[in-house]
Amino acid sequence: MRPLSEKIGNIAPSATLRIAAQARAMQAKGIDVISLSLGEPDFDTPRHITEAAITALREGKTHYAPGRGIPELLSAISEKVTRENNIPCDPNQVIVTCGAKSAVHESCEAVLTAGDEAIILDPSWVSYEPCIQIAGGKPVHVPLSDQNFQPDDRLAEAINKKTRMIIVNSPSNPSGSVLEKESLKMVADLCIDHDLIALSDEIYEKLIYGKVHHSLGAFPDMADRTITINGFSKSYAMTGWRLGYAIAPEPILKLMDTFQQHTTSQATTFAMYGAVAALNGSQDCVTEMCDEFERRKNNVISGLSKLGLQTSPADGAFYAFINVQGDDMLVTSEWLEKGRVAVTPGFAFNSPGWVRMSYAASQEQLDEAIERISRLYT
Amino acid sequence: MRPLSEKIGNIAPSATLRIAAQARAMQAKGIDVISLSLGEPDFDTPRHITEAAITALREGKTHYAPGRGIPELLSAISEKVTRENNIPCDPNQVIVTCGAKSAVHESCEAVLTAGDEAIILDPSWVSYEPCIQIAGGKPVHVPLSDQNFQPDDRLAEAINKKTRMIIVNSPSNPSGSVLEKESLKMVADLCIDHDLIALSDEIYEKLIYGKVHHSLGAFPDMADRTITINGFSKSYAMTGWRLGYAIAPEPILKLMDTFQQHTTSQATTFAMYGAVAALNGSQDCVTEMCDEFERRKNNVISGLSKLGLQTSPADGAFYAFINVQGDDMLVTSEWLEKGRVAVTPGFAFNSPGWVRMSYAASQEQLDEAIERISRLYT
Repeated sequence: MRPLSEKIGNIAPSATLRIAAQARAMQAKGIDVISLSLGEPDFDTPRHITEAAITALREGKTHYAPGRGIPELLSAISEKVTRENNIPCDPNQVIVTCGAKSAVHESCEAVLTAGDEAIILDPSWVSYEPCIQIAGGKPVHVPLSDQNFQPDDRLAEAINKKTRMIIVNSPSNPSGSVLEKESLKMVADLCIDHDLIALSDEIYEKLIYGKVHHSLGAFPDMADRTITINGFSKSYAMTGWRLGYAIAPEPILKLMDTFQQHTTSQATTFAMYGAVAALNGSQDCVTEMCDEFERRKNNVISGLSKLGLQTSPADGAFYAFINVQGDDMLVTSEWLEKGRVAVTPGFAFNSPGWVRMSYAASQEQLDEAIERISRLYT
Repeated sequence: MRPLSEKIGNIAPSATLRIAAQARAMQAKGIDVISLSLGEPDFDTPRHITEAAITALREGKTHYAPGRGIPELLSAISEKVTRENNIPCDPNQVIVTCGAKSAVHESCEAVLTAGDEAIILDPSWVSYEPCIQIAGGKPVHVPLSDQNFQPDDRLAEAINKKTRMIIVNSPSNPSGSVLEKESLKMVADLCIDHDLIALSDEIYEKLIYGKVHHSLGAFPDMADRTITINGFSKSYAMTGWRLGYAIAPEPILKLMDTFQQHTTSQATTFAMYGAVAALNGSQDCVTEMCDEFERRKNNVISGLSKLGLQTSPADGAFYAFINVQGDDMLVTSEWLEKGRVAVTPGFAFNSPGWVRMSYAASQEQLDEAIERISRLYT
């Protein structure tokens, strides 16, 4: 057979999904693996959200919906973004997508023309680079500072005439770090000075510990050049629902809408009624899950610290990003094969020498995982 | 602001979705429009399917699933395809997607390299051309014969060294016609002779009236070069569930899997349990809906015929494709504005001079629509 797509052939499968599959395969053989490799809350979706989707199913909300989403959800999102993120947002500026991942992909397709460069700040989430490449763009990696995981002068130095977009992600997957207001101001100034689009992935905004979340789109003159991405997976434990969204300036949103019409049509209709309940209902469930993640984080960071393992500032999301000061692939293999703890090697996030451990697991599992790792270090 | 994506900027929004939105806007103003423009069964999803999704939601099936789909669904699909479509199919050759549209998009991305040509047989569904263009390919349109809507010599003449793929769709959206076994044999021979990939979109396979459905992938030596696309939307009235699937040779499936991992991850987890119930449960619901569509079709075709309006052979799907022998845009506007009946102009399917009328509406609505159109013709 003649060759298939060159472009897709050059893209590596998702390392996080691969390692999760490897852990599942070991578990299926009866091996007791603790899987801390996926970015998924271990909580079930809160009951009132599930019940709203059940009601929608019972009421026959099984038909096509408007492509950008049901009107109730577009309104609820625009109100939330205006109120909480300080970004003035009309329902017409909202598109609901099949997961926030799909919103990232659609944003890249809408903005980038073949050859355009898009800047990614490392360590970075696994799918930014492929989404840029799929859209025909060229990913340019710029490291955050090793000390505090904030952008420094290297960001400005990476910008040239081909640069079209900067992607920021705070709180960050994989590092758990949060961008300071001054860091976001630096990104905003660069976007304005060089006429760039910002893609601000804020999917972990609600999982933040002792820090304040700032939306890049709320900075002066940034609403017109910022795509804000968010979703329901992390805040409301709704990963399997595949519901994300983007807020974008009208010309960008129009292209994302066209793209979505021809590729996925829309998110699942009755699932969107669950998302309406999530946004309009009590937010206590979010606070409770966040508090629980913070307790686990403190235990995990303290446990790792006792083993002499340093982590990045763990101020948000649900990951401990560990400096293993060595070959992250070797460490990951050793932890999995000898320790039976699955984590993700830093190379997947363009940060060799580190590994990512999700603490979205029960405290018992986390204690046992730290115990197993400690045996490898003594 | 500097220009956005050239590629996406050149793609037209979905005409069917645009006209449906226009009809909805008129309805919202209190105007009594009969909308026959969308490709959607008017039935609600059968109860046993909905209940399976509800059970999954109640059991906490709200988490991530394996990217290609839950194992129960991969098995059910592979058994169905092996049994009904005569294509030997292992669960590893199946990928579940966010609707069949997404499967078409992923197929184009997996197969085509920039500049590759893909042949579309006209009249053709609205999203084949954009999916090819999004993947960087070049769509080449080849008309089916006007008489019987089968491919003729022009198909072979359109093939050159750049040709990589042929897309077939039987039963056809928009024409309702069904490809004969000899036509499929012609396509198969051309694919084998020229080392081409076939994309066979069989989403309407169950909605067929007095004809037999043949799968292109079942022809000798075609399983290794055919992507078979299907889904749940049309057969089981599950449009809003966003559940489609593809069966593909291993190298193609691998690239589709990689692509999906970075763009949508997976279909909605609890919705997939509904699809398992659809495939494993009684198929009476499919037969009942199909019988009802056939009754409506006979009435609609006979009504149109009395007005002197000729249609393509309406042997499958749920569309009457009407030869209006004039400007289809003008006719569509007149039917909508004066007749208050929304249909889709043929230009959307690369077939000017025709309009597509969906008969997936109640018999009362269809009778009233024919009555309204008849007033414009007398």
